[in-house]
Amino acid sequence: MDSESKIQGEFVCPVPIERYATVLLAHGGGGKLTHQLIEQLFLPAFGNSLLEERHDGAILNVDSGRIAFTTDSYIIHPLFFPGGDIGSLSINGTVNDLAMCGARPLYLSAGFILEEGLPMDTLRRVVQSMKLAAENAGVRLVTGDTKVVDRGKGDGIFINTAGIGLIESGCHISPANVRPGDRILLSGDIGRHGIAIMAVREGLEFESTIMSDCAALSDIVLSLLATGVEVHCLRDLTRGGLASALIEIAETSSLHFEIHEAEIPVQEDVKGACEILGFDPLYVANEGRFVSFVPANDAERALQRMRAHPLGNQARIIGTVKSDNPGLVTMQSRIGGTRVVDMLSGEQLPRIC
Amino acid sequence: MDSESKIQGEFVCPVPIERYATVLLAHGGGGKLTHQLIEQLFLPAFGNSLLEERHDGAILNVDSGRIAFTTDSYIIHPLFFPGGDIGSLSINGTVNDLAMCGARPLYLSAGFILEEGLPMDTLRRVVQSMKLAAENAGVRLVTGDTKVVDRGKGDGIFINTAGIGLIESGCHISPANVRPGDRILLSGDIGRHGIAIMAVREGLEFESTIMSDCAALSDIVLSLLATGVEVHCLRDLTRGGLASALIEIAETSSLHFEIHEAEIPVQEDVKGACEILGFDPLYVANEGRFVSFVPANDAERALQRMRAHPLGNQARIIGTVKSDNPGLVTMQSRIGGTRVVDMLSGEQLPRIC
Repeated sequence: MDSESKIQGEFVCPVPIERYATVLLAHGGGGKLTHQLIEQLFLPAFGNSLLEERHDGAILNVDSGRIAFTTDSYIIHPLFFPGGDIGSLSINGTVNDLAMCGARPLYLSAGFILEEGLPMDTLRRVVQSMKLAAENAGVRLVTGDTKVVDRGKGDGIFINTAGIGLIESGCHISPANVRPGDRILLSGDIGRHGIAIMAVREGLEFESTIMSDCAALSDIVLSLLATGVEVHCLRDLTRGGLASALIEIAETSSLHFEIHEAEIPVQEDVKGACEILGFDPLYVANEGRFVSFVPANDAERALQRMRAHPLGNQARIIGTVKSDNPGLVTMQSRIGGTRVVDMLSGEQLPRIC
Repeated sequence: MDSESKIQGEFVCPVPIERYATVLLAHGGGGKLTHQLIEQLFLPAFGNSLLEERHDGAILNVDSGRIAFTTDSYIIHPLFFPGGDIGSLSINGTVNDLAMCGARPLYLSAGFILEEGLPMDTLRRVVQSMKLAAENAGVRLVTGDTKVVDRGKGDGIFINTAGIGLIESGCHISPANVRPGDRILLSGDIGRHGIAIMAVREGLEFESTIMSDCAALSDIVLSLLATGVEVHCLRDLTRGGLASALIEIAETSSLHFEIHEAEIPVQEDVKGACEILGFDPLYVANEGRFVSFVPANDAERALQRMRAHPLGNQARIIGTVKSDNPGLVTMQSRIGGTRVVDMLSGEQLPRIC
């Protein structure tokens, strides 16, 4: 009797994933259940030749040049909100960070930290939303990881995405490249994402549902770059809102930004909600808005191109870069006064992204 | 009075980070405290020209060719263990995934999910450990993100790292490239990481402290590739241990791996601990061990090169690739029987990495 004929074991087909109502610790254990989760839930959603190699990483062919590399973790609460969910947010947020480097987003990784007991259906909805957002943004999810923490040691789903994008143009987009005289363009109204989250979290009712602005900004940014406008800096307005984004860049570039309150669009219902809640829309998070810094003589052309895109149809020139008060952002109010826009200590709303 | 002279605000120097005993929600809010955390804790540890750009992502120059891209989240409990901690693990784990693609690890991202109330000193120790591990592995941390979740919604620190590596040789390392006749080489003894964690977690005392094998494998792998040996596949033996790694590759390649129990080194104290705990060392996680698949006529040369490296001085040829039972891993026991090595449903030890 040779050794082969002694083989007794056989793979038992595991219970289909539909039978599991919730995520178990074993789904993160690297064994059969992890494989089943990958094969029956992740691969059908994200399947592509790179992911299907089932290797420890994805092998990507790149041309010589510059790539952008970024990461963000998403811990938003609640997981679902008007205008998006943690899945679409986790794709769009990282796509946007790549876009802000002037890069065409190409490849994403996804790292899931699931809490034991998470309804499997919630995970499925989130993954489906990631799939759609990735298709919409033209990116491929090429490598991933799933971990499960015990009940009470997480909060449903946390997602980290890292991304790689290709910088195609000769642009050099960086806070260090902002120049005195540059105009500051804002792509649209601010404050919707933060207020949408807050409304769901606190059960607030407004006349109409305030929708998050969550969106992939790569298309509008690439279309702006394609005009040949010399874009000096780009920044999306996430945690800390417009104010924090501008202050960060003012500090890094050691320049003074003067902005005009009257030029900053805020939806009426968002304005009302901010008044009730005691928030300043300047600091409220957005997930589909950005500022761009362009030379004065390119500003009008940049504005027209942004307005031609659905995600920029309310774009405005909101201010000018000066050199007299390095590191400061000042705002001329509607009634003519000027105040310093200071950075908050924390965020008005925790766990907004 | 011009508008400039009306400016009243001034940046108040924030309290130095040493004064914060614990992490606050505001440290993840994107405001002053987040900036302080970055400037006073992360930048001094990881500072490099790419990170200091303070942009939404890092801009990397790449030469035309193949890059590897990978991600892993680390949720290990406890955070500190003999032989490592979540910081060194989060660097070495991702470095190893890149090494398993045959890539030279170059750039890492880091995404922190901190729990409100985490002692600041714990964070500092972890960051210091990441710094040392990154230096040791020759990788640069070039982009990052920090989020804070409310108390009871996380567990101290979770870290995601994604990594980019450059594939320098003409190698094609993939489960799909394993061939019948290939020899299977194991780089050293197995089971130490999992047992080290278990011992700390359960307060078990052994005669000597069992140390995790946590280490960066890039150097030994690159030295193996430099010999010109035609390496067909590499895999590190993390969650699920040696058994799960082999089964995954056997299934993906539709080949049969026959291994020999007598050739698989297990430290005596690890063996003893496994017996007491009812674990099979084949399934226990490692963080500094790997298998390689090489053609039979290259096997001896590969073995000698691995043995010449401190991380491979116990390397062995543990088995052979066959084609007769596609997708199966079988093991000849010390007493001559043969059994199928099956995949476990979950992991014997949750939260091992």
